[in-house]
Amino acid sequence: MPIITLTTDFGTRDHFVAVMKGVILGIAPKVSIVDITHEIEPFAVGEAAFTLGEAWQWFPKKTIHVCVVDPGVGSMRRPILVEAGGHYLVGPDNGSFGLICARDRKARVRHLTSVRYFAQERSQTFHGRDVFAPVAAQLALGVRPASLGAVIADVSRTTLEAPVRTSTRTWAGAVLKVDRFGNLITNFHLSEFPDLARCQIAMIAGIQPVDYLVRCYADAPPGEAVAIIGSSGYLEVIVNQGSAAKRLGCGVGAPVELSIL
Amino acid sequence: MPIITLTTDFGTRDHFVAVMKGVILGIAPKVSIVDITHEIEPFAVGEAAFTLGEAWQWFPKKTIHVCVVDPGVGSMRRPILVEAGGHYLVGPDNGSFGLICARDRKARVRHLTSVRYFAQERSQTFHGRDVFAPVAAQLALGVRPASLGAVIADVSRTTLEAPVRTSTRTWAGAVLKVDRFGNLITNFHLSEFPDLARCQIAMIAGIQPVDYLVRCYADAPPGEAVAIIGSSGYLEVIVNQGSAAKRLGCGVGAPVELSIL
Amino acid sequence: MPIITLTTDFGTRDHFVAVMKGVILGIAPKVSIVDITHEIEPFAVGEAAFTLGEAWQWFPKKTIHVCVVDPGVGSMRRPILVEAGGHYLVGPDNGSFGLICARDRKARVRHLTSVRYFAQERSQTFHGRDVFAPVAAQLALGVRPASLGAVIADVSRTTLEAPVRTSTRTWAGAVLKVDRFGNLITNFHLSEFPDLARCQIAMIAGIQPVDYLVRCYADAPPGEAVAIIGSSGYLEVIVNQGSAAKRLGCGVGAPVELSIL
Repeated sequence: MPIITLTTDFGTRDHFVAVMKGVILGIAPKVSIVDITHEIEPFAVGEAAFTLGEAWQWFPKKTIHVCVVDPGVGSMRRPILVEAGGHYLVGPDNGSFGLICARDRKARVRHLTSVRYFAQERSQTFHGRDVFAPVAAQLALGVRPASLGAVIADVSRTTLEAPVRTSTRTWAGAVLKVDRFGNLITNFHLSEFPDLARCQIAMIAGIQPVDYLVRCYADAPPGEAVAIIGSSGYLEVIVNQGSAAKRLGCGVGAPVELSIL
Repeated sequence: MPIITLTTDFGTRDHFVAVMKGVILGIAPKVSIVDITHEIEPFAVGEAAFTLGEAWQWFPKKTIHVCVVDPGVGSMRRPILVEAGGHYLVGPDNGSFGLICARDRKARVRHLTSVRYFAQERSQTFHGRDVFAPVAAQLALGVRPASLGAVIADVSRTTLEAPVRTSTRTWAGAVLKVDRFGNLITNFHLSEFPDLARCQIAMIAGIQPVDYLVRCYADAPPGEAVAIIGSSGYLEVIVNQGSAAKRLGCGVGAPVELSIL
Repeated sequence: MPIITLTTDFGTRDHFVAVMKGVILGIAPKVSIVDITHEIEPFAVGEAAFTLGEAWQWFPKKTIHVCVVDPGVGSMRRPILVEAGGHYLVGPDNGSFGLICARDRKARVRHLTSVRYFAQERSQTFHGRDVFAPVAAQLALGVRPASLGAVIADVSRTTLEAPVRTSTRTWAGAVLKVDRFGNLITNFHLSEFPDLARCQIAMIAGIQPVDYLVRCYADAPPGEAVAIIGSSGYLEVIVNQGSAAKRLGCGVGAPVELSIL
């Protein structure tokens, strides 16, 4: 039986996540459910897109990823299924899967319209329970994607900005995410900036210069903000055993200027 | 093998929850354990009763729900097993299962007295580990409820207030729960107020009027507190993509007046 | 299939924990994964050692415990495997398993050097994903410890202090841990102070006297700080339905003087 992962902004204090798990296990009792996170900031679709984008490919193929950060629940926004890289992704069409679709040109997106796979009575406020959990469980049982709805071409994109070139050797980027340790994950990725690993760089994060690129946290001088290629290939600004976010006063969206020398 | 769910006020930072899971898996290795929540406010039996009350029926029959919010651990309060709606519920007799017993007149309650199903050495401070986890695991293995203790008739009730009628068309109720999004869940339920869905209403939540009843969050004008029938059938006060609790300055217990026009 | 437990300081907001679970399930799909906690204070190896030390033995034998609180990731600190009491423990050699090794003289420790069981490409910043998750999953599949690396004798110890005798009947100890309820768990353990259960005691926690030893929380007079033998055998200072930490102004490391009368 496949795995179903869950990514939501529901928190872990209320009953919402447990209800989705109950619905899934009622339909597909042998499935394994793994939480990616339920601590997405309420309604923060971009954060959900980033977090799911970092996690999904580490799971085995055939995994079904449910992502419900859904400020438009009950409105006309479409419920969708994305097939990408041998995985399934289920949730509202609001950009949550935009990063994944942008990177995988072969991703196929379907509008979930077969209401016979939804709950019989559907609320207007909890599609995680009434639409996405049942559909994910049915996929786990072997229902074919083509039975769930027709292919569409106009999936919503994510507004995570890409860096902009501002001169021959300089780019203007931004902080995509601040992790628990206060590391600033920027939108400069090794796949688009392969020189990062072998050239000298100069950065400005917020209003502070960050001049060193180190290989691992332990190589960073204590208390100093330095750059590192993080475990996912993004350029990060870190402080060894400290918080770069606090040290530099930067959060999500803070400007990052990169010069490759 | 059945599912065991866990609802506690233990938090997720200490070792308590993991110890209960270890005990369960040591007795019943094939059981699936699902967390409902461990973030119940310490000693808040009413919050536990509400959260479990919203979650339990979404799980398949035969599920065993363990609820340990237990300010009286080690005192004379009784450990009990409730059989209701084809599910089992295990925990201290302090009102945690009061809502469920009040709604299901056929619920059967037993005083857990068969100490041979408890841990051999029992602490006075951690019955989640020494009493409730072992009993739940034994139930999962097929031990019959009648082996665990005799039926009792005087289970503790929950003090969640019901609305009080104050005039022909007006009721005085209260906020039962504030969820992660700041939605105010009131104690007006569609099952007792079926007119909610088809009549015009006027409400006062705290000291502010709430005049509109909308069908889904997206129908609410930005920034305005409106009413909605929530996914569990309770009348809720919400702000679309905002917090009604902050907007109206209301928390658990705040007064809510409902007029059905 | 055995159980794999996870103890980290990664939090539950980012993708890190889910990525480790994806890697484990990709290698060993049938394993059960149980979170001990991911809320260890960042880099707090002592807290990890205490929390894992309280939890691990409640799991069935053959369980594999992964503990990644790893301020030195990417440096020369060794990855290790501990075999103790029929369990396996995997993580960096930084004291996380020091308590367990100190208590079990027969514990065997191996330096993990067989890189063929690690991820093929290894980052310098996320050995939870690239080293410890794959090794744990391989152990679950039946790889023999001897294949993973050679036995070493110089495992890092934990600096959790033991109490010091200061006069015939008096010892100077400390608060090891404050739990979610504000209970102060001291480093006086019943195994080393068997008289605790039967003699009269006098304590000073921080600067306040604590004179009564009660049998269970409910026996404590309301609002008063009293001592209790906790569920793990440690002497604790508690306030019935309140926080001893707040009442006495004490945190981790606060001095505790014990007199056995």
